[in-house]
Amino acid sequence: MELKPFSYNSMSTFEIQKISTTLFSNFRHKFGVRYSNQFNCSRGLFLKSYSVSDESYFAAVTTSSHSVDGINGSTERLYYRNLILDAFDDEYGGVVIDPNSLPQNSYAFASILCLSLSHWKKLGKKGIWLKLPLEKSDFVPIAVKEGFEYHHAEPGYVMLTYWIPEGPCMLPGNASHQVGIGGFVINDNNEVLVVQEKHCSPATLGLWKIPTGFIHEAEEIYTGAVREVKEETGIDTDFIEVIAFRHVHNVAFEKSDLFFICMLRPLSSSITVDDHEIEAAKWMPLVEFVEQPLIQEDSMFKKIVDIFIARLGKRYCGLSTHQVVSNFDGKISSLYYNVIDNDDANCVGK
Amino acid sequence: MELKPFSYNSMSTFEIQKISTTLFSNFRHKFGVRYSNQFNCSRGLFLKSYSVSDESYFAAVTTSSHSVDGINGSTERLYYRNLILDAFDDEYGGVVIDPNSLPQNSYAFASILCLSLSHWKKLGKKGIWLKLPLEKSDFVPIAVKEGFEYHHAEPGYVMLTYWIPEGPCMLPGNASHQVGIGGFVINDNNEVLVVQEKHCSPATLGLWKIPTGFIHEAEEIYTGAVREVKEETGIDTDFIEVIAFRHVHNVAFEKSDLFFICMLRPLSSSITVDDHEIEAAKWMPLVEFVEQPLIQEDSMFKKIVDIFIARLGKRYCGLSTHQVVSNFDGKISSLYYNVIDNDDANCVGK
Repeated sequence: MELKPFSYNSMSTFEIQKISTTLFSNFRHKFGVRYSNQFNCSRGLFLKSYSVSDESYFAAVTTSSHSVDGINGSTERLYYRNLILDAFDDEYGGVVIDPNSLPQNSYAFASILCLSLSHWKKLGKKGIWLKLPLEKSDFVPIAVKEGFEYHHAEPGYVMLTYWIPEGPCMLPGNASHQVGIGGFVINDNNEVLVVQEKHCSPATLGLWKIPTGFIHEAEEIYTGAVREVKEETGIDTDFIEVIAFRHVHNVAFEKSDLFFICMLRPLSSSITVDDHEIEAAKWMPLVEFVEQPLIQEDSMFKKIVDIFIARLGKRYCGLSTHQVVSNFDGKISSLYYNVIDNDDANCVGK
Repeated sequence: MELKPFSYNSMSTFEIQKISTTLFSNFRHKFGVRYSNQFNCSRGLFLKSYSVSDESYFAAVTTSSHSVDGINGSTERLYYRNLILDAFDDEYGGVVIDPNSLPQNSYAFASILCLSLSHWKKLGKKGIWLKLPLEKSDFVPIAVKEGFEYHHAEPGYVMLTYWIPEGPCMLPGNASHQVGIGGFVINDNNEVLVVQEKHCSPATLGLWKIPTGFIHEAEEIYTGAVREVKEETGIDTDFIEVIAFRHVHNVAFEKSDLFFICMLRPLSSSITVDDHEIEAAKWMPLVEFVEQPLIQEDSMFKKIVDIFIARLGKRYCGLSTHQVVSNFDGKISSLYYNVIDNDDANCVGK
């Protein structure tokens, strides 16, 4: 990307005037005023950015002329230096722009970004990460004009990336999966906790199904399963195992979906239905649950129920959860595996 | 949100002039011309949007006056109707704006979006979905000014949402997880396929580890494991089972990570190292692999190796993959579970 004068075409009169004020209020008393008359533009303020050695210069020059009582007013001019965005190196030979170093207005941002990219190219940097908070959304088109692409976004910000080298972008991808859970809860009377949803797919209309839902951000699978069962039915449970999981693609927003089928032990029996999501909930005899046509006629539902029944009969091993910390990243994490070496094992052979 | 005159402050002179041209070239010959002189602004074009009943009106009025040979030029005026963005209903009582219905310029977009939101509010719609392609990045700040938030983004677009009702937003969340795999490959000589990475964490420096990586978009766990092993070492394999998985949070971009440890059967023996990612790869005697201090001193690595050895000794059940189609969503999906009902079972009790 060539260094080029900032184009004021993406700026409004209002913004230009505001920035003009900002620039002067910020810098008039900080910098000596130099005369330069090489730039001109119709909006009264023109900004030209250029680089001299590795130090960057940034010159803001007003050329707006005004006349009071026949006397032409003089034009204010100034410059200041070192306007490269603060950034720190990432693990991949790239840099992450410090969101706190972003200027207040898009006029300054356009110029500083242009200078910074040039600077990082000279340093041989690879990927540039730019996180723009929602309140800086007016910076987005400016970054895109410079060649940035979107990487991912959350409600409060959008992350953009710029890949400097020739050849394919080697930056890591965005999150690719949503994670859902379903909870099998069976009581001492051999009754399964089932619900009917208010908004269900036509294919499952009338089906009494297990409580399901998505896990929250940074939530564990085992706590998500317990929470969803509690929210939908009011029943308290203990997590026992993941007995199976389903992997499917191109679901919401073309993302993939991992759905973990969990076995839970009930700790209470009195049902309270969540009016927002759930039409009805009840304890249903296992046989009645299994014999529902929508389950018997669906290869996936039938297989999952077979697994559930095998697990009840101790003819099946699910994966239970265990907290482990690894030196690899120092994080506490949940490792899901069969219990093979202690008395908690309550599956095959027990 | 109240209907309000469109503010030209977010527009550049250039854009306003361009839009002026566009408006007239698009619409002059399409609509009857009505006189109205209630608006005025310094740039020669002012746009006011308002709603009459459920039909929307959109009036573009030039007030630029010009004089040629002492004769004042007349001002062009026009209006046109029904400028609500095309949209279709989603499953949640909301609407999804058709990206193909977006206008060409941000000036028109600001007004049409404002009218459309008012229209959908009257209809009692809930969530509004707005997908803006990269080339329409100048629409992003306009949508944010109207109250839109980011939902998610991919390189080519950003998805924004607007939640109309009072109370908490009930829209489904963004993808929350990245999915990684690791492949245990052991040959008939009881040697494990191991690698040393070029860019590894300091904590694993010198560790001979199993091949690992992220699965691609819409890729299966079992094909991702086979692909990664092939890419890093050149070894062909068959997927056998997921023997365990790890769930950890706040990894890349504050997202969560699901890492599936897979057991694979080698189909070839000659190693070809991937120079980009891998420093070295080899077949390592199982005992030597297990006795590495970095494994023995790490509770997670040690547990995973214990599981691997238990699985080799047929004292452990992993989850194998099975293709199933469900009426629930009509999709082919992979269901991972123990083999409990056929001769392929090669774990506990076999």
